[in-house]
Amino acid sequence: MSPLRFNAFVMNTNSHIHHGQWRHPDAQQVDFESVDVWVNLAKKLEEGLFDAIFFADIVGLYGAGDGPYDVNVREGLQIPNHDPAVLLSALAVNTEHLGLAFTSNVLQQHPFHFARQISTLDHISKGRVAWNIVTGTLENGARNFDLEHLPDHEERYKWAQEYVDVTYKLWEGSWDEGALLKDRERGIYSDPSKVHKIYHRGERYRVDGPHLPSPSPQRTPLLFQAGASDDGRAFAAQHAEGVFIIAPTPEIAADNIRETRRLAVAAGRRAEDVKFYQGIAFVVGSTEEEAKRKEQELEEYLSIDGYLAHMNYAAKEDGTSYPPDTPLADVETNASKGLLTWLRQSITDHEPVVADVAALLSGRRIVGTPEQIADQLEVWQRAGVDGFNIFNWRIPDSYTEFIDHVLPVLRERGLAQTEYAPGTFRQKVFGSDYVNERHPAAQYRGTFGGKS
Amino acid sequence: MSPLRFNAFVMNTNSHIHHGQWRHPDAQQVDFESVDVWVNLAKKLEEGLFDAIFFADIVGLYGAGDGPYDVNVREGLQIPNHDPAVLLSALAVNTEHLGLAFTSNVLQQHPFHFARQISTLDHISKGRVAWNIVTGTLENGARNFDLEHLPDHEERYKWAQEYVDVTYKLWEGSWDEGALLKDRERGIYSDPSKVHKIYHRGERYRVDGPHLPSPSPQRTPLLFQAGASDDGRAFAAQHAEGVFIIAPTPEIAADNIRETRRLAVAAGRRAEDVKFYQGIAFVVGSTEEEAKRKEQELEEYLSIDGYLAHMNYAAKEDGTSYPPDTPLADVETNASKGLLTWLRQSITDHEPVVADVAALLSGRRIVGTPEQIADQLEVWQRAGVDGFNIFNWRIPDSYTEFIDHVLPVLRERGLAQTEYAPGTFRQKVFGSDYVNERHPAAQYRGTFGGKS
Repeated sequence: MSPLRFNAFVMNTNSHIHHGQWRHPDAQQVDFESVDVWVNLAKKLEEGLFDAIFFADIVGLYGAGDGPYDVNVREGLQIPNHDPAVLLSALAVNTEHLGLAFTSNVLQQHPFHFARQISTLDHISKGRVAWNIVTGTLENGARNFDLEHLPDHEERYKWAQEYVDVTYKLWEGSWDEGALLKDRERGIYSDPSKVHKIYHRGERYRVDGPHLPSPSPQRTPLLFQAGASDDGRAFAAQHAEGVFIIAPTPEIAADNIRETRRLAVAAGRRAEDVKFYQGIAFVVGSTEEEAKRKEQELEEYLSIDGYLAHMNYAAKEDGTSYPPDTPLADVETNASKGLLTWLRQSITDHEPVVADVAALLSGRRIVGTPEQIADQLEVWQRAGVDGFNIFNWRIPDSYTEFIDHVLPVLRERGLAQTEYAPGTFRQKVFGSDYVNERHPAAQYRGTFGGKS
Repeated sequence: MSPLRFNAFVMNTNSHIHHGQWRHPDAQQVDFESVDVWVNLAKKLEEGLFDAIFFADIVGLYGAGDGPYDVNVREGLQIPNHDPAVLLSALAVNTEHLGLAFTSNVLQQHPFHFARQISTLDHISKGRVAWNIVTGTLENGARNFDLEHLPDHEERYKWAQEYVDVTYKLWEGSWDEGALLKDRERGIYSDPSKVHKIYHRGERYRVDGPHLPSPSPQRTPLLFQAGASDDGRAFAAQHAEGVFIIAPTPEIAADNIRETRRLAVAAGRRAEDVKFYQGIAFVVGSTEEEAKRKEQELEEYLSIDGYLAHMNYAAKEDGTSYPPDTPLADVETNASKGLLTWLRQSITDHEPVVADVAALLSGRRIVGTPEQIADQLEVWQRAGVDGFNIFNWRIPDSYTEFIDHVLPVLRERGLAQTEYAPGTFRQKVFGSDYVNERHPAAQYRGTFGGKS
């Protein structure tokens, strides 16, 4: 078996996925606004040879449309939440190898400025930046950005297509290879014949360029995506180098992977151009009994209200929660198509009720000894998964336990890397600094000459 | 005399103000993409008890409209340039007191997201962030952000008014004092009755909120502005806590300061609510002869082409430069009104020619021994200046020399602080963490209750 890849899936907030756990006295996510929490975690992850710290992000509130958000605020459920992009350079200067992945919605920044931020961070980190491309699913998030309503699914993916197109032109096409000279003798910092405007003219954006930063170590950052809908999967097949899945079973993961790889090949890429990361959480014990006891402790802190709000089922018009036995069919919801698909895939033996959402969400975990966990990870690997985005109950404990107790067992079995490969994030994962020639970003290399 | 305040005026680029100097073998700005250059500089500035590192920024190219930019690229003249915002957290974790000021144009980011970045950085730095508000003067910069043309001066300041209004609502009004509880016992992270949407509806922006970050140590960052036009000065008088001026003489500075303070008082603020920082460069020698010799060395590296391009006079339609003796009246230029005003104030004895622009720009310097420099700074202080934004010839030498040789003399005379005051950037400068009640941001405190 080849080594699996591991990312810590976190968010610059208090309660990200596993709600209520922040109340545990050892939960440091409570103080997420303190940079020390993240610097210490990043150092620990690097000690454990993790590929990356991977920041989720949202630019609104999980909750129904323009409705109440009391549960979110009370639970610290992704509010307050802070921008991950401006945090990353603090982590970059405290690590050497750890990848720095973050989520950015096409809604939230203009692509000209976003591309510049990415390039700046890729320079600062010496090529360790990854972008998780999202189009946003929150009605109230869109209302923070001048929109009256969230555009529909198809429209959002068209938007994302143009957005990445602008960034690809800037990253790959605006500066030719060898443009940056720093030639003190001749007084030529960069070669004017090799720095080009891009003159993008599209439906939403008009961007002249040139790209202001010089080419960064990776140019285009390593690209992640997590779309589960048909549009989302088609987008991932075309653009993503890492796909983040949350499959209820290894079998369903295998289906997802097979289908996305088929679409990638149809789009002119190769099956191996896309890696798949399953989202998962662990409860580790030195014995099975200890693991179960720790699981029970987690259950004590678990907030059903939090899980429900997270999945948009919590809030009735008056801000109170639906009773747990409410059939999902009776819930007025904003839930995404992806969630409903996932519920249908997961619950087949009865008509789902509200409580099932929380149970499913909180249940996506492997509980056991390091050996038992390793056995399970092998099952996922055989299903075609390349690695894992690991959720946490507590920061840093969830990662510390995995690093200290599970990784040594995985290493013995050849299931985890024993040292970092040198170079950029993409170099470590795919063996090259730049996107390969089959990726849509590559089409813009060397195409803007003559327009300087 | 009271202590003067000092900021290092820099830019995340190779050639910021004093062009050609990057060719000197000791000039580290050549490698500005390396975070080490900035971390080392920030540490040195903190050792010298500087108030802040102050990043300029532009989102386009100095050059005529949509014309050639060969000189800019060759000189490394503010291209490549990198985003300062994402660099700051690396400096925050390597310093304790140094202020982190940066420029952001209202063009470049949506105010909802920008406000979130600022709050995140203010948390990370424990209250050390300052924002230099600019509206942008570059035609080609506007063309990177979907605009066909730069809006006119009046329109840009109207835009900026709405932009700061959105950010003030988010920073001051969205979260009441005491909203953040982190109460593990009761399971209340924040109090839902104290976190409000802002429902901003304006000409350009529609922003519902709530602000996603919790209140940062300063809430509204310390606000700088540098407008020299009538509209710019009126804006500064209303919003700025620090005004950056580049006066040709102390007398002209005194006039500027008097007029802006008069406008501030007319706007309901007090004269002392606004501090003034003169832009300046130093050439330090242990003797006058050494200073002159060092000045001569600087002259050898100086690039006239660079200074000309910086002020938009370099490029004819074919990309070549105007001869130095071309009367300014004959030059087709995009130069801002502020520059022309400045030239008229500065050159009164002859009809200005192209070479005068470069001479004036490069000449804004004080050359001499530490004692001679201290004498000159006293003259500026008597004109009403509170501190200085110090330009550099070389990073880090220009600052190292000032810190090691000039500051001790200033300290002896009581003209420089001998230790940092505790607390946030605003606490250090004005004695309070938040904007005072006379500032327009203060009007939004406690005004959004009942809308949660």
